[in-house]
Amino acid sequence: MTIVLGDNQYGKAETRLVRVERHADHHSIVDLNVSTALAGDLAATHLTGDNSGVLPTDTQKNTVYAFARDGVGEIEDFALRLAKHFVETTPTIHRARVRIEQYGWDRLAHHSFVRGAGTRTTTATYDGTRHWVVSGVADLVVLNTTGSEFQGFHKDRYTTLPEATDRILATAVTARWRHAEAGGDWAESYTEAKRHLLEAFADTHSLSLQQTLHAMGERVLANRAELAEVRLTLPNKHHFLVDLQPFGLDNPGEVFFAADRPYGLIEGTVLRDDAPDAGLAWW
Amino acid sequence: MTIVLGDNQYGKAETRLVRVERHADHHSIVDLNVSTALAGDLAATHLTGDNSGVLPTDTQKNTVYAFARDGVGEIEDFALRLAKHFVETTPTIHRARVRIEQYGWDRLAHHSFVRGAGTRTTTATYDGTRHWVVSGVADLVVLNTTGSEFQGFHKDRYTTLPEATDRILATAVTARWRHAEAGGDWAESYTEAKRHLLEAFADTHSLSLQQTLHAMGERVLANRAELAEVRLTLPNKHHFLVDLQPFGLDNPGEVFFAADRPYGLIEGTVLRDDAPDAGLAWW
Amino acid sequence: MTIVLGDNQYGKAETRLVRVERHADHHSIVDLNVSTALAGDLAATHLTGDNSGVLPTDTQKNTVYAFARDGVGEIEDFALRLAKHFVETTPTIHRARVRIEQYGWDRLAHHSFVRGAGTRTTTATYDGTRHWVVSGVADLVVLNTTGSEFQGFHKDRYTTLPEATDRILATAVTARWRHAEAGGDWAESYTEAKRHLLEAFADTHSLSLQQTLHAMGERVLANRAELAEVRLTLPNKHHFLVDLQPFGLDNPGEVFFAADRPYGLIEGTVLRDDAPDAGLAWW
Amino acid sequence: MTIVLGDNQYGKAETRLVRVERHADHHSIVDLNVSTALAGDLAATHLTGDNSGVLPTDTQKNTVYAFARDGVGEIEDFALRLAKHFVETTPTIHRARVRIEQYGWDRLAHHSFVRGAGTRTTTATYDGTRHWVVSGVADLVVLNTTGSEFQGFHKDRYTTLPEATDRILATAVTARWRHAEAGGDWAESYTEAKRHLLEAFADTHSLSLQQTLHAMGERVLANRAELAEVRLTLPNKHHFLVDLQPFGLDNPGEVFFAADRPYGLIEGTVLRDDAPDAGLAWW
Repeated sequence: MTIVLGDNQYGKAETRLVRVERHADHHSIVDLNVSTALAGDLAATHLTGDNSGVLPTDTQKNTVYAFARDGVGEIEDFALRLAKHFVETTPTIHRARVRIEQYGWDRLAHHSFVRGAGTRTTTATYDGTRHWVVSGVADLVVLNTTGSEFQGFHKDRYTTLPEATDRILATAVTARWRHAEAGGDWAESYTEAKRHLLEAFADTHSLSLQQTLHAMGERVLANRAELAEVRLTLPNKHHFLVDLQPFGLDNPGEVFFAADRPYGLIEGTVLRDDAPDAGLAWW
Repeated sequence: MTIVLGDNQYGKAETRLVRVERHADHHSIVDLNVSTALAGDLAATHLTGDNSGVLPTDTQKNTVYAFARDGVGEIEDFALRLAKHFVETTPTIHRARVRIEQYGWDRLAHHSFVRGAGTRTTTATYDGTRHWVVSGVADLVVLNTTGSEFQGFHKDRYTTLPEATDRILATAVTARWRHAEAGGDWAESYTEAKRHLLEAFADTHSLSLQQTLHAMGERVLANRAELAEVRLTLPNKHHFLVDLQPFGLDNPGEVFFAADRPYGLIEGTVLRDDAPDAGLAWW
Repeated sequence: MTIVLGDNQYGKAETRLVRVERHADHHSIVDLNVSTALAGDLAATHLTGDNSGVLPTDTQKNTVYAFARDGVGEIEDFALRLAKHFVETTPTIHRARVRIEQYGWDRLAHHSFVRGAGTRTTTATYDGTRHWVVSGVADLVVLNTTGSEFQGFHKDRYTTLPEATDRILATAVTARWRHAEAGGDWAESYTEAKRHLLEAFADTHSLSLQQTLHAMGERVLANRAELAEVRLTLPNKHHFLVDLQPFGLDNPGEVFFAADRPYGLIEGTVLRDDAPDAGLAWW
Repeated sequence: MTIVLGDNQYGKAETRLVRVERHADHHSIVDLNVSTALAGDLAATHLTGDNSGVLPTDTQKNTVYAFARDGVGEIEDFALRLAKHFVETTPTIHRARVRIEQYGWDRLAHHSFVRGAGTRTTTATYDGTRHWVVSGVADLVVLNTTGSEFQGFHKDRYTTLPEATDRILATAVTARWRHAEAGGDWAESYTEAKRHLLEAFADTHSLSLQQTLHAMGERVLANRAELAEVRLTLPNKHHFLVDLQPFGLDNPGEVFFAADRPYGLIEGTVLRDDAPDAGLAWW
C-alpha cells in the first residue's frame, strides 16, 4: 500500500474586478467576481515543495486585471481567454477553469448606476484540446401566489403533510446551461435563457416543484438550439399559512409565515439525448 | 451604592410576513420583516421573575399576523397600528416601537413575481401621547464612475493617500427620514424621497463623500415638506485603480479592484432648524 | 426655515490587523478588527467640499497599523492611545471613538494557533477632556437544558403560548460594561466579567430571560468594583419541542427544533445608582 | 433529438435538531444540521406531476426528528440509519444521502453549555447494496506565524509576487475523509483524524500550501488504517506585511493586514493506491 496524490487543483478565488468603459457621452461598467483554478503536473509542489511548475495565484489575479485592460466583453469570452492563456503559456498546466459572477447594474444617468437584482454566471474550461462553456443565473428569487399543488404523494408512518391544492411556490433559482459549442451571441443567449426560465416558472401550473424544474429546463432547451443541457437547483422556500382561528379569524390564503430553514431542495438536469460531451465536468 | 435596573425593552425580532392580496384578475404581495420592541413597567420580571406585566413575544408575533388579516397597506400605517395597539391594550407597556423592512418584488405575470433590489424601511414609535414615524431605504447600492474628487485634505505624519481628481464613488445607501407628522401619502413620500436621493447622488459633483451626503439629505428636505430630518450612513466602498505598469500597460481609469474591508464610513444628519421634536429617539 | 447640518462623524471601519509578537522560543498573536470614528468641526467638507479639516480615513487606517508597531497590549489601551492621538493632533477633531473586536486564538504549538470561539470587544471615546471605556463580549452562545420557566405572563386575545415549566434557554450574549475609570487591569477585568456572566447564566434558575439578564448584569457589578454599568442584548433562541405523537412516540423534553427567526430580543441595562457619567454615549 | 430528464435528487435541507440526553446528575446535548437527498425512479413527478413515488421532504424532516427519539449517537451511525431507512422503505428510492453538520458545545455546568469552535461533518450514502461514509471537519481556522516559505515558483509576464522566505500561513480547513468500511469507532476516528490534521499543519515546514495539504492528508492516512482517502480544501488567507516605511518605521514581520478577498484556494486529494471504491461519489 502506498499513499498517493489524487485529483487536485489550485487558483485564485474571488478576484473582484470593476471595469469602466469611458465613452464620450456616457460610461458603462462591468462588475465581476472572477475565480481561476488550474490543474496539471503539480505533484512536485505537493510532494517536495518544488514550486517550479506553480504559477502563483497572485499571478493569476494579475492576469485577470491585465486582460481586463483590453476590455472584458461578454463574460464567457473573457473566461475563455483566460482559461486558454493559462494552459497555453504555463507548461505544467493542462486544464484551466475560470468561473465568473457578474453583478447587474442599472443606469441612473450618464455616469451613475444603481445595483440591480440577480447574478449572471459562467464557467469556462479548457483542457488543451477542447473548451466548454457553462452559463447561468443565480440569486433569481421568484414566487407564484397560486397555480401550485402538491398532492398524491407517497405516505408512510412519518407523513403528516396535508395535500395542498393551492399553495405558494417560491424559490431562488440557480440555473446553469451548457453551450453545445462556443462562439455564439452570449448576451442574447443569456437574456433569452433567463426569459424562458422566468416565463416557464410563471406559466407552468405546478403539480410539484420537480415538474416546474423540468418545465423550466425543457423550455430553455426547446427554444435555444445552442444549449445542450440545463441544471437547476431550486430550494423550496416554504410559506406556511398562519392559523388565525385562535383569534377568531379565517385565513383564506392571505397571511403566510416565510420560513428560513429547513427548506426543500430540488436538483435536476434536463438535456438533449444526443447532447455532445454530456459527461464533461462542470465543477 | 445600589445596583439598579436601567433602560430596557423587549420584543419579537424578525417576524417574516408575506401577505397576498387576491384580486379577481391578479394578485399582489407584500413581503415584510417585522420587529417589535416594548418598554414600560417591567422591573418585576427583571427583579423577581414576576411576569404578570409581560406580554409574551410570542403574542407580539401572533398580533403581527392577526393584524395582517385586515390588510397591511403602507408599512408606516401598519407599524403605527401595531405600536398603538401594544401601548393601549397592555397596561404595563408605555412605549412601543415597530420596525419593518419591506422587500420589493416586480411583477412577472398576474400571479408571479421576481424579487427586486433595495429595501424600504420604517420605524414607528408610540409612547401613549405622541407617535413619530421614520421611513427609509436600505441596501441601495450606487456608483458614479466620475465626478468625484478628494483633495486638499489635512495631512499628518501618517498620511500617504494621494490627492484624487477623479475617482469612483460607490456606496450602499442607508437613509432614514423622520416625518414631521404622520398621516400623509406614505407611498408617494417614499418614492419621491428615494428618487431625490438617487438624483442628488448622480448629479452632485462630489468633493468629498460628506458633501454628497449633505447634498442628498438637503435635496430630500428641500423637496419634501412633510419631512423634518434625514440621517444617512454611507460606507465609502473603495475602488482602487490597479497598477498595470509592471505588465507594460497603462490604466487610464478603467480597471479597478473593488475592496471589501476596510471601508470609509460617513454618517451624518441633515435637518430643518425649526424641526419639531428634533430630540426624539429613532432607535 | 433653514436646512442645517446635524450630528455627524466619519472614520475607517473594519481595519483588519494581525500583530505577531516574536519571542525567542514562541510567538503570540493579536487578531483585531479596528474601527475609528471622528467628530468635530466638519461643516466645511459637508457644505462646500473644503477638506482642509478632514484627516482622511486612509490616514486613520495607516495610524492603526503604525501604532501597532510599538505593540498592541490590551485592546482598551490601544483604543485609548488611538482616540487621544486623533483628538490631540488633528485641530478640527473634538471627539474620537475607537471600536475594536478581538478574535481569540488558542495555541497549538510554539508558532501555531487555532481560532477559538467568542469575541472580546471595546469602545474607547475621548472628547478632549474626558475619556471613557466600554469593554464587552460578543458571539458568546450559551444554552441551559433545564432550570428555565416562563409562566404567569399577561394574556390577551392574541396569546396562544402555553405556560412553560421547564424549557431550553439559549441565547447569544452580547454584553458591554462601562469602566468607572480607565487604568486598571483590563485583561483581568475582562476575564472575570466574562466568567461572572457565564456563571450567572448557568446557575440562575430563570423565571424569564429578563430575570436572567438582570442576574447576569448584577453578578458582574457585584463582583467587579471597577465597572459602573452593564448592557446586555440577549436574543431568545427558541428551541421548540417537536410533537412526535403522530408517530406514536412521546417526547419528554429530548427532541427539539432550533428555530432561526423570529426570535425574542431582550435588551437591558444594569447599573450602580451612583454610577458617574451615566449619561455618556456608548455608541 | 429528444429532451430528457438527467440526474436528479431531492430532499430536505438544513433540518436543525437539538437532542438533549437527560441523565440523573447531568445533561448532554447534540446540536445538528441534517440534510437528506433521495434519488431513484422519479421521472413521473418531473414529467407529469404524478407524485405517487415522492416521499415528501416534510416527511423526511419528520423522520429525522422521530429517529432522534431513540438517541442520535455518533453522527455517522445516525446518518446511516436514516439513509438505509429511506431506501428500504420507499419503493421508488434507490439511493439516499444524509449529510450532517455537528456543532460543538463545551460544558459550563451540569445543565449548561457554551458553543465552541469548529464543526464536525459526515455524509453517509446508501444505494441499496453498498453504503459508504465520509467524515470530516469544517470551520477549523489555523495559522502559523513562521515556518512557511513560497519560493522558486514559475514566473511569467504577469508575475510580480516576491519570493517569500518567511510568511504567515493561515487557512480555514475543510477536510473530509472516506472510511474504508463502516462500523468502527467513529468518535475516536474523528478525534484522531482532526488531531493529526492539526499536528501536521503545525509541525510541517511549508514550502507551499500544497505541500502542507499533502502532509496533512498523508499524516491522517498513515495513522488511521480505517480511512482510505482524504480531501482537503484550503483557502490561503493572505496576511500582507504592512509597509511602515512611509512613517519611518521598520516592520520585521510583526504588523499584518488580513485580507478578505481574493484568496488562494488549494484543493487536493490524498489516498491509498489500493483504496477500495475510489470512484464513489462524495457529493
